[in-house]
Amino acid sequence: MKILLVGASGAVGRAVASALAPRHEVIGAGRQHGDHPVDITSDASVAALFDAVGPLDAIVSAAGGVFFGPLEAMRPADFNLGLQDKLLGQVRLALLGQRALRDGGSITLTTGIVSDEPIRQGANAAAVNAAVEGFVRAAAIELPRGLRINAVSPTVLTESLADYGAFFPGFESVPAARAALAYVRSVEGAQTGRVYRVWQ
Amino acid sequence: MKILLVGASGAVGRAVASALAPRHEVIGAGRQHGDHPVDITSDASVAALFDAVGPLDAIVSAAGGVFFGPLEAMRPADFNLGLQDKLLGQVRLALLGQRALRDGGSITLTTGIVSDEPIRQGANAAAVNAAVEGFVRAAAIELPRGLRINAVSPTVLTESLADYGAFFPGFESVPAARAALAYVRSVEGAQTGRVYRVWQ
Repeated sequence: MKILLVGASGAVGRAVASALAPRHEVIGAGRQHGDHPVDITSDASVAALFDAVGPLDAIVSAAGGVFFGPLEAMRPADFNLGLQDKLLGQVRLALLGQRALRDGGSITLTTGIVSDEPIRQGANAAAVNAAVEGFVRAAAIELPRGLRINAVSPTVLTESLADYGAFFPGFESVPAARAALAYVRSVEGAQTGRVYRVWQ
Repeated sequence: MKILLVGASGAVGRAVASALAPRHEVIGAGRQHGDHPVDITSDASVAALFDAVGPLDAIVSAAGGVFFGPLEAMRPADFNLGLQDKLLGQVRLALLGQRALRDGGSITLTTGIVSDEPIRQGANAAAVNAAVEGFVRAAAIELPRGLRINAVSPTVLTESLADYGAFFPGFESVPAARAALAYVRSVEGAQTGRVYRVWQ
């Protein structure tokens, strides 16, 4: 398959690339990615990416930032950062990408455990992740031509514990390589409208 | 209790007002509401509303629009309409409203069945409703001073079948007066972080 991987240079993205590369053509893209730089908050940038890479069998997104901070001090503008980036950015990849996919192609987006298991300072992450999961459930029943869409919801990555572990007291981490399996399952499997939770 | 009800003139809002008014002081607000007009997409408008009404025991929102349309033709800008209105609008009421609440006060937001049971043309509604529910789960664990937050997720209202029934084939409707009970349960009960689904 010919697979576009957005967010290819992040911890999840690198593991997904490693898992898919032996059997597929993986085209990496990302905010700071040399070959295919893309700003997922921009229609023009995302459209240009799809024009540049041509017809695809799968789109995988491991991209998008959210706002972390105490609820008491959170401003609506802070909250909107995650809505515009990880939520609308990934939805944009799906909405514009549906036309770049060949029949039977798939879209895989990334959410995270915080939508089900909230943490302090995570109100924006919880909302954004839950929204992407709601979008996936709904988009799955409307996509034409056998197109599929799923989400992967990892818990905190073992590789990220040094940076984020303090936000996740008592949470079991998973190695990025284990999270990457769920992306493989979404891309190579046959299910649609699923949220693959990588912690259960 | 002194209760601010935003979206007081809608089908849900009117039923909630009727259910709460016998035992509480209910202050109605809304986009086209005479006494307390408010634009939930504006920080200044929402802040002015809280300044005008003074300290509260409960904030109830039955407000916010989403975008309905086929996934195939949906543009990111369409999708953002619901993010800015029903999602960020209700989050704004919670973020700015937390400081207007007396100790032990509550916030009740509105979602809808489409987050769990998607319908055609409902990708934006599914995402927005799921996001509000994720926000409620997360905000509940951070709110100080015994403040609570819940969501009510009604199915299609019997009173709205003439307008929206075609979007909900085979769905059982509920009268607005039954949906209103869930708002009473949120305001007068003791739970927090709950989504009251009015169809189960």
